[in-house]
Amino acid sequence: MRNLRCLASCLVLALAAACFSSAAWAQISQPDTLTRLMPLPAKVVERPGVLELHPNFSYAFTGDAGPRLQHAAQRLVASMEQRTGIQMAHEPAIGSATLTIAVPAVSAPEAVPQPNPQPNMDESYTLDIDSAHIVLTARTDIGALRGLETLLQLVGPVGSGYALPAAHIEDAPRFAWRGLMIDSGRHFEPLPVILRTLDAMASVKLNVFHWHLTEDQGFRIESKTFPELHQKGSGGQFYTQDQVREVIAYASDRGIRVVPEFDVPGHTQSWLVGHPELGSAPGPFALDPIFGISDDALDPSRESTFEFLDKFFAEMAALFPDPYLHAGGDESNGKEWRANPAIAAFMQQHGFKTTEELQTYFSQRVVKILAAHHKQMVGWDEILSPGLPAEAVIQSWRGTQYLSDAARQGHLAILSKPWYLDHPRSSAEIFAADPLPADTTLTVEQQKLILGGEACMWGEHVTPATIDSRIWPRAAVVAERLWSPATDRDVDSMYRRLATETLRLEYEGLMHLSGPVRVERLLAGSAEIHPLEIFVATLQPVDFHVRSQQQHPNTLTVFDRLVDAARPDPALRHELPPLVDAAIAGDAAARAQLRTLFQSWLDAAPAVEKLEANSPILQEAHIHIAAWPQLATLGLDALHALDRKTPQPAAWLDAQTTTLHDAVAPQELVDFVVLAPLQKLAEAAASAH
Amino acid sequence: MRNLRCLASCLVLALAAACFSSAAWAQISQPDTLTRLMPLPAKVVERPGVLELHPNFSYAFTGDAGPRLQHAAQRLVASMEQRTGIQMAHEPAIGSATLTIAVPAVSAPEAVPQPNPQPNMDESYTLDIDSAHIVLTARTDIGALRGLETLLQLVGPVGSGYALPAAHIEDAPRFAWRGLMIDSGRHFEPLPVILRTLDAMASVKLNVFHWHLTEDQGFRIESKTFPELHQKGSGGQFYTQDQVREVIAYASDRGIRVVPEFDVPGHTQSWLVGHPELGSAPGPFALDPIFGISDDALDPSRESTFEFLDKFFAEMAALFPDPYLHAGGDESNGKEWRANPAIAAFMQQHGFKTTEELQTYFSQRVVKILAAHHKQMVGWDEILSPGLPAEAVIQSWRGTQYLSDAARQGHLAILSKPWYLDHPRSSAEIFAADPLPADTTLTVEQQKLILGGEACMWGEHVTPATIDSRIWPRAAVVAERLWSPATDRDVDSMYRRLATETLRLEYEGLMHLSGPVRVERLLAGSAEIHPLEIFVATLQPVDFHVRSQQQHPNTLTVFDRLVDAARPDPALRHELPPLVDAAIAGDAAARAQLRTLFQSWLDAAPAVEKLEANSPILQEAHIHIAAWPQLATLGLDALHALDRKTPQPAAWLDAQTTTLHDAVAPQELVDFVVLAPLQKLAEAAASAH
Repeated sequence: MRNLRCLASCLVLALAAACFSSAAWAQISQPDTLTRLMPLPAKVVERPGVLELHPNFSYAFTGDAGPRLQHAAQRLVASMEQRTGIQMAHEPAIGSATLTIAVPAVSAPEAVPQPNPQPNMDESYTLDIDSAHIVLTARTDIGALRGLETLLQLVGPVGSGYALPAAHIEDAPRFAWRGLMIDSGRHFEPLPVILRTLDAMASVKLNVFHWHLTEDQGFRIESKTFPELHQKGSGGQFYTQDQVREVIAYASDRGIRVVPEFDVPGHTQSWLVGHPELGSAPGPFALDPIFGISDDALDPSRESTFEFLDKFFAEMAALFPDPYLHAGGDESNGKEWRANPAIAAFMQQHGFKTTEELQTYFSQRVVKILAAHHKQMVGWDEILSPGLPAEAVIQSWRGTQYLSDAARQGHLAILSKPWYLDHPRSSAEIFAADPLPADTTLTVEQQKLILGGEACMWGEHVTPATIDSRIWPRAAVVAERLWSPATDRDVDSMYRRLATETLRLEYEGLMHLSGPVRVERLLAGSAEIHPLEIFVATLQPVDFHVRSQQQHPNTLTVFDRLVDAARPDPALRHELPPLVDAAIAGDAAARAQLRTLFQSWLDAAPAVEKLEANSPILQEAHIHIAAWPQLATLGLDALHALDRKTPQPAAWLDAQTTTLHDAVAPQELVDFVVLAPLQKLAEAAASAH
Repeated sequence: MRNLRCLASCLVLALAAACFSSAAWAQISQPDTLTRLMPLPAKVVERPGVLELHPNFSYAFTGDAGPRLQHAAQRLVASMEQRTGIQMAHEPAIGSATLTIAVPAVSAPEAVPQPNPQPNMDESYTLDIDSAHIVLTARTDIGALRGLETLLQLVGPVGSGYALPAAHIEDAPRFAWRGLMIDSGRHFEPLPVILRTLDAMASVKLNVFHWHLTEDQGFRIESKTFPELHQKGSGGQFYTQDQVREVIAYASDRGIRVVPEFDVPGHTQSWLVGHPELGSAPGPFALDPIFGISDDALDPSRESTFEFLDKFFAEMAALFPDPYLHAGGDESNGKEWRANPAIAAFMQQHGFKTTEELQTYFSQRVVKILAAHHKQMVGWDEILSPGLPAEAVIQSWRGTQYLSDAARQGHLAILSKPWYLDHPRSSAEIFAADPLPADTTLTVEQQKLILGGEACMWGEHVTPATIDSRIWPRAAVVAERLWSPATDRDVDSMYRRLATETLRLEYEGLMHLSGPVRVERLLAGSAEIHPLEIFVATLQPVDFHVRSQQQHPNTLTVFDRLVDAARPDPALRHELPPLVDAAIAGDAAARAQLRTLFQSWLDAAPAVEKLEANSPILQEAHIHIAAWPQLATLGLDALHALDRKTPQPAAWLDAQTTTLHDAVAPQELVDFVVLAPLQKLAEAAASAH
């Protein structure tokens, strides 16, 4: 169980590492094929020619395709139809076909499709496309699924039709655990959100859905053993066990594992509403809409707590087929433990000097309970301590050092540190992180313990209307980091491919592009929202902590505000700096592009001011709205100075610096992403010659 | 049962008719109040002042509010919060409050909330708003619901905040049956579509959801009595009875009745797949993706057919609480009846000379079966015949004469004739129709038989992704025609209010605005879709019959095409003609507005041409894309001529007429809506002086 990366993956990886370096990618690839792929495959050899798509496109299986692969092939056809408008056969052909999907015959043991994806699933595949045929070969149905996603990404316009480029692709993931966590506790996310997220995960080959099901603000899953948990702890917003089974089946159909999380001993306020006897404080307990670190925690000094957990985990272990189960363990501050005389006495009796030691005792018990129900425990990195049983898996979120520490102490480990999607981190920063960076000090054996990583979507500031634009497209960057070779480091290539993939994800059912526009339309109170869209494109949400401190949002807060329409990592954030650099360096095309951009701001500004006057809710961004045309003028003036090769006076630069300084207004919950490059442009204009 | 319009409605109506004429509306109303209301209330008296919304807004009940009204009040608060960003109390206040919702105490018999809305429900209410308080008074919880919707519509921006205008409103519907039909048979519409449609219906006070559940292409409801109906007849796309109960409860919570339709004896191909013994032809039968009038029909000559229907209707009658049940009866062509010797013999034996007479016999039997299960039958107007039992209700779709004929023959009747939403009819045309036009030749007694009407959304050309933009906002115009006084005839006022309401409906959860944008983004294959949006705003879908003949769409056709992004009745269709008239008459502002419009076309055209080159699916509209900049130039040249007071030469007008003629290309499935006013403008330019 320790080395979950399959042999095939390692072989292809070794090959990939031997053949390709970051520079080599550019040589073997032409934009046609590679600009459409995310994550990048381990090996791509482009060939001349294309396979044109026509109504006579057909597919057939060799070997024994189970229902999972049959469903995936039908989804492929439906997606290609939607993309191209070409109507094709939905059922497999008998005999030869355009696309042959080759999986082993049933005599081979790996041919029997697993009822649920396993942690050691073989996801490798090869894809051969020439002008007439496609052959997809895989050792398992899930490998074939991954290949079908690659195939779908390759469909694009060619002349007056649609086609796939001829190519030979050999592919397998670098890491076996490639996850996305969704927190359904703080804000409940209805089933359609979960299902479309699973579709998008499959598109970018993520394979673990980590479902954070219990939080202080809500116990989101039906328990038949202890029905008061969800009845009293959810405000009516929970998943029935039938719905959970539907999610597991839907995920399984897409080759995705479902790892549930029941966070203990902290973050358990919602448990205590129905079961106050589990608490470390006397209670009574009520659902608290305020997010944060609650003092409430389960009482580890009573045997009855573990008897309860044993029964509860027994029920959940039977519901969730995955061999892993996440038991949280984060942010338990120990306050109530210290305040409770019985718990203090228990600590003394067992020789625990700190509440951390008490939590280790708690973890030991939970590991044992889960093992009895055939589950291996995953926990947040706070549980890492010398006394922690070796079989506990560590999810590192506070810092990458915890990942290495876990591996050094013999634990399997997964990385989430810079991948918290509730922070507006750039895709570049997300892309740069790596569970196994080139300079790792881990031994080869320790490296084998690093399973992969997970992007995490915490729920404080997201609702069903906004969650897509927070998760996507950045989770696709995490997916690429975890799937593609370690040598895949070209940030520009990543952004180019992300621009394609982000459109395709909306095609496949996400609402990360249309959702913010919807909010913009509501904010504008007008059908004419184009000026507002231009404005919002210059903004991003403030950091998670800033918003928490400025707005104090809770579960009842309305989240359809300008900050919710603003995208984390908007395109301008990474597109503007190189444009400004090129403009300063004298590139006429860059200057023209910037002039068009700044002029579009100036043209749109009066309309946005008018919207603000008619839609008071927009006044939350008054400083930004007022500063925007000044930024546009700054840019145009600076370009003019550069063109004339005549420096702007020092007073002008002072005034611009003040303008840029005043445009920082974090109390408005949004930040301009254009200020630094504008400052650079202004400085260049002040020394133009 | 005959006069379903409540007394209160008639009283208020009489008052309204006495007090207001079309012209009088303008006198008593200022834009602030009335531009926000759709449908128009029976009586509105505006008062000076506004009630400002603050976080301390509260509501309380007097009398006995049941769960339906409590839920509605909570939804009101949530909607106001979303609209204003102001967080308010969700629970009712004890004692005095900003909003008092007064319903009768339980001692009054009408105070007991009905478990389900009844056809004779009292929907009247009065609303009094001053600068400090709102009092909503109603005789039933459903009346209060209607008042809450009016109240919500009144919320708007005032200065730097949000407020409601002070006013006195007395309101009640003109017609008791105000429906929307959705065809879930030809394209299945998943539950979220149905639920958000019910929300929107409640927003505009529609009160009957007519659910067309069986069609040739699909049997969409679970039958426990005859499970092969949905198992073999739906391709897996059907509503479970649990889901149906959820829809009924959701509708009931919003004061909406659910009238199910099981269309017999024609349109029953899907029934016959699992039960071929019901058919008039020997079978076997299969689901046919091709829409149209199938020859298949139930066999009325066998007693076993009626025994089957008796058991099936018994099951459905128990599931659906409404006293009405729709049994279809449309488009049964009689071909298989004539071709079947046993049926021919049966006809001869009973003396039926035509298949119409045989269908009347069939209707008589169905009426009787339904009556035994306490349901009154509704049917499409084909069933109207001398032998039809009086209790059958006629839904007129082929022509308004069938509505009058039905009433003259003593049947209750509802109008759907010009309200088929699958045709791109204008809101003006929809608004002009009336179940009881001023020139009706019906007697007063016959007029009482006219219950109201229904907008109908047939399913051939709509999918879950496009259905919202086909139904809305035009169904709101039907809602106004059926609710508001007969004197409400001001088309300009309707369009102004519709522009507000259409935004608000998207706020409330519809996707009629964002859905088409989503399709545009997919078609463009680019994030930069503004030019395409400008182009699409000049188009509407071709008529239903034209599309059917040109494209031959079936259930497997992909429906995310340009024609699906184009809105029926786009704003330009009604906004352009008066602008052109004003420009010709010399109005400088109108000319400036038109110049900006035409210039925006010219500016956007190259980008659309580029999108077309990169997105072959857009080539379906090549003629339109190529013609568009010529139309822009025509407009600009014409304006120039008018400004100079110099006529364009005759050759120019000839060329423009050719351009306009060539821009008609119905094989492309879209039509320009701007051609007629442009022709007028060109002609004016040719005679400018």
